[in-house]
Amino acid sequence: MSGTSQKYKNFVAEPMGNKSVTELAGIGETLGGRLTAAGFDKAYTVLGQYLILKKDEELFKDWMKEVCHASSKQASDCYNCLNDWCEEFL
Amino acid sequence: MSGTSQKYKNFVAEPMGNKSVTELAGIGETLGGRLTAAGFDKAYTVLGQYLILKKDEELFKDWMKEVCHASSKQASDCYNCLNDWCEEFL
Repeated sequence: MSGTSQKYKNFVAEPMGNKSVTELAGIGETLGGRLTAAGFDKAYTVLGQYLILKKDEELFKDWMKEVCHASSKQASDCYNCLNDWCEEFL
Repeated sequence: MSGTSQKYKNFVAEPMGNKSVTELAGIGETLGGRLTAAGFDKAYTVLGQYLILKKDEELFKDWMKEVCHASSKQASDCYNCLNDWCEEFL
């Protein structure tokens, strides 16, 4: 269950500030490197993409797969992480 | 002083949730209509653009001028509003 991973819990527990993109659930070093190369080095830049796509789950997951070759599970973990962060803090 | 307008104060005082784009400082009915037509109907979608641009003041103000023909003052008011909201809540 991605929703209960420690990484997820840590992320949704507080404002994201300048956290690195790799602190998002689903984003490890490999995907983080690809995202950084694409200009998405901070978690808040990925949040920006999520918001631009109007929080749409399918569009966001498709974008994740395209920009950093995320698997369905990685894209889903990242989506849930941002979605729940927004419910708490946005 | 945009930084002390009532609209600015209201916006930076709390999470933005689903507030309309017209609740952002600098965005009245005219600019709000243009932003909505361009797909930016919620304040959080404009926040998304601001974050995608890595909070860069010049890039964001240029985008505002392009997408909805904002004046320099309107673009600046909106930038300050989002910038200060982020310092408080992001």
